[in-house]
Formats: sequence, C-alpha cells, structure tokens
Amino acid sequence: MSALRIALFLILFSFALANENPDAHVFPRPLVIEYPENIEPRFDDEVRLKCASWRFAGEANNLNPWKTIPEECAGYVKDYMTGKGYESDLLRASEEAGVYAQNVELGGDGKDVWVFDVDETLISNLPYYYEHGFGLEVFDSVEFDKWVEKGVAPAIKSSLKLYQDIKRLGFKAFLLTGRSDRHREVTVENLKNAGFQDWDKLVLRLPEDHVKSATTYKSEKRSQMVEEGFRIVGNSGDQWSDLLGSSMSQRSFKLPNPMYFIP
Amino acid sequence: MSALRIALFLILFSFALANENPDAHVFPRPLVIEYPENIEPRFDDEVRLKCASWRFAGEANNLNPWKTIPEECAGYVKDYMTGKGYESDLLRASEEAGVYAQNVELGGDGKDVWVFDVDETLISNLPYYYEHGFGLEVFDSVEFDKWVEKGVAPAIKSSLKLYQDIKRLGFKAFLLTGRSDRHREVTVENLKNAGFQDWDKLVLRLPEDHVKSATTYKSEKRSQMVEEGFRIVGNSGDQWSDLLGSSMSQRSFKLPNPMYFIP
Repeated sequence: MSALRIALFLILFSFALANENPDAHVFPRPLVIEYPENIEPRFDDEVRLKCASWRFAGEANNLNPWKTIPEECAGYVKDYMTGKGYESDLLRASEEAGVYAQNVELGGDGKDVWVFDVDETLISNLPYYYEHGFGLEVFDSVEFDKWVEKGVAPAIKSSLKLYQDIKRLGFKAFLLTGRSDRHREVTVENLKNAGFQDWDKLVLRLPEDHVKSATTYKSEKRSQMVEEGFRIVGNSGDQWSDLLGSSMSQRSFKLPNPMYFIP
Repeated sequence: MSALRIALFLILFSFALANENPDAHVFPRPLVIEYPENIEPRFDDEVRLKCASWRFAGEANNLNPWKTIPEECAGYVKDYMTGKGYESDLLRASEEAGVYAQNVELGGDGKDVWVFDVDETLISNLPYYYEHGFGLEVFDSVEFDKWVEKGVAPAIKSSLKLYQDIKRLGFKAFLLTGRSDRHREVTVENLKNAGFQDWDKLVLRLPEDHVKSATTYKSEKRSQMVEEGFRIVGNSGDQWSDLLGSSMSQRSFKLPNPMYFIP
C-alpha cells in the first residue's frame, strides 16, 4: 500500500513539475484517472449560458450559500475544470497578482506579508473532485480526509510560480488554511513535494477553530498577524471567505473555483 | 432637436418597459442604433479563452487598474454586451440579491437600507458605449456628459425588478452615484422615466468629492448613513469601488461590467 502511495505520488509530482512550457496543458490532464474523453457535451447553449451566469455569480460572490453545484451544470463544470478554462483563469489571476507584487514598495523590515490559502490555491484537489462529480456530490469530510491523508495533491503551477516570485521579491509567505492541525504533517509533506518551500508560517485549524466559519477563523488569524506588526499586502484564495472579513489584505486575488463554497 | 430627443427617449423607454417576458432579449437589442449584425466573429478560440479569463479577472477584482479593454478583446466584449451573456449575468446577480433580500429579517424601524449605484446598475449607458467601442476608447468625460445630459439611459430590467422588490419588502432605497450633483435634475428625470420611483436618498458627487476615488467617496457616504443609524443590508453595483472600502454592506452584489473600471 505504501509502495502504491509512493508510486502514485511520484506520477503526480512528476507531472506537476515536469513541463516547463507554460502554454502546455499539463494540468489537470495528466492525472492518473481514466476518463472517457469522447462523450458528447451533455448540455445545450441555453444550459451553457445559465451555468456561465451561475459561475460568474459565484466568482463575483453574488451567490447565496450553496452545498452542491446545480445538477444541470454538472457537464459544464466538468468541461471547465478539465478543459482550458480553469487553467487559463488560474494563470490570469496569478499573473495580475505578480504584476501587483512587483510594483509594491516593500518596507525593508521583513514585515510585508502575502497570505496564501492552500487547497485549490497552492495545491489542487482536482483528482479527488474528478472522482466525486466536480462538486455535484455533497461534501463528504470522511472521504475527503482520506484523500488529504494521501498527501499527493499536485501543485497549481501558476500559483507555484507566483509563490516563488513572492518569496524572491522579499515578501513573507504565510499559509493560512482551513485544514485541521492534525493534518499538519501530511500537509507539510504534500506542499514540499509539490515544490513549495520556505514558507514563513503555516496556520492550520486548531480544535477551537472548527466551530468558526472560515471567514471568522481567517479574519482572526489575519488580525493576529497585523497585531504582530505584519502588513498584509496580498492575499490569494479560491474562496471569498479566504479574502473578506476583518484585517483584509491591501489587495486580494480570487482564484476560480466553481466546485464548492465555504462560508 | 427637442422633438428628436423626446422621440429617442420614447423609443428607448418603450423598449425598456414594453416586454413583460423576462426571457425575451429586450436588452440591449432594441437600441435605435444601426449595427452590422452579419460580421463574422473577429476572434478565434484562443483569443476567446484569453478574453474570458480577462473578464473573469475583472469581475473577481483581480485586475490591476486599466483604462481601456484589451484591444484583442474588442470583439469579445462587443459580443458579450450585445448578445445574451450580459443580460443573463445581470439577471442572475439580481435574482440572488432578491432571494437574499426576501430572507432578511427587517428591523421594522425603517433603518434597513439597500444601496444602489446608478450607471450600469439601475440604468444603462450601453447606447453610449455602443458608439464608443464598448470600452476600447479612453473615457471622454465631455462626450459622456453630453450623453448623460440627454437623460435617456434605459433601465436595466432585472435591476428595476429588484428595486421594486426591495421597496415592496420595506427597505429604504439609497442611490449612491459617482455622477456630479450638477446632473441631479437630469438624473432624477432619467431614473423616473426609466421606471424608478420613491427612492429615499439620491447622493451625487459634490464639488469637494470630485478629487476622491470612488471607493473613498462611497465609503464616506456609507459611513454617514451608518452614523445616521441606518443598517446597510444590501448593496448593488457594477464596480468593486461601489462595494468595497469602509462601512461595507452586509452583502454586496457585483453586477457585470467588462467595459470600464473605476478605482
């Protein structure tokens, strides 16, 4: 079982890092999951229009809380996530973040911080959601934890590049995740294997944080950073609950995620 | 000239209100502007993908400040604004706002407020932008003022419905616009002719506000509302500068607008 895990990890890891051409569609195609590529799109123009508006509403934080993607949008979301759209949107978000970061004048006192969320921001759980309807199934924390504990989530390539640029520019990288602190070890291992190095802080949820909404938990943690004298200059996350609340970053970058919603 | 203005207005107004079927594409097709419909799309899949990511980045507030739309996206933005996409996205944003509004428990003291931006939120300047490249030309305040002074901007139908629902539910409707106070009269006339009635406040920019960014100006005005004891429960706007800053609303609804950016 352990050998299988290592093999699976190596396959994913090699794909995550192997291709140096940023235009190649290395993600998420190389995942070691069989998928029938030749199915005809299961939706017409009207459904596509409706689902595009639903996705836009989600990304602009207009949607009321939701637990699963609309059933009629299952094909649309699958196409978006496995086609070129998701990768292209991820790239653009990180490119804009990179341009902003380059133009920030750092204080020179080591207090300028970029906050990164982890799941769907630095590393991708797409292999898991690939097997679970891309958000069509109600979230199953037991099943998802099993996936997390494998520690094989691949890097989001454009985020890895932004992360490396941020570090090179002299920002502190603070990782702020909704993952439980009991997954610290596997998360560290996963992040390192995906190519992330030298973060300055990794904040995970302690038992007392589990009852809080992500917005509250992350706001509290950002407020602590500010109290410690750090300036939160940038923040990358795939959920609005990564970005909104108190002690907000000077600029926030919302990465796409039409698969799930965390309040 | 005056007769022409009245005729133009009547045409626009009748289209804005005439069609009771929400699925009909009454907007913006009926505008009295000749447009060559038969031109082939001037962009391929790669440009479409890139421009879709640019638009997503704008709507998610990821873009760095910009003055014109990317030249390669001129055809893409035109298609979006004049096709079904824009109308569909507008509708979804207001529908979600309506669902939220219906589930808010009002205080019963007349202090619950919904803040609306005006341009591209309640009424549409699409006839103007139709003639000016949909954001491809640098904004020309002299030309735009001429358009504003005509007072013929049509209602955004889905916003008019939301506005009426909001009023019916018992919210106060506060209109907060970046328009100059010297355009108060024509703005009032335009809003009324477009079907908006009985707003509780209409805040326009006074001379001292013109140096401020929209974010600062609107934050100050929202703070005044809060100081006066109002609770800002909802906020609709097509710019993030309508929604972010201080004294933010409990929920915000970002309407689509890929044509221009106001900081």
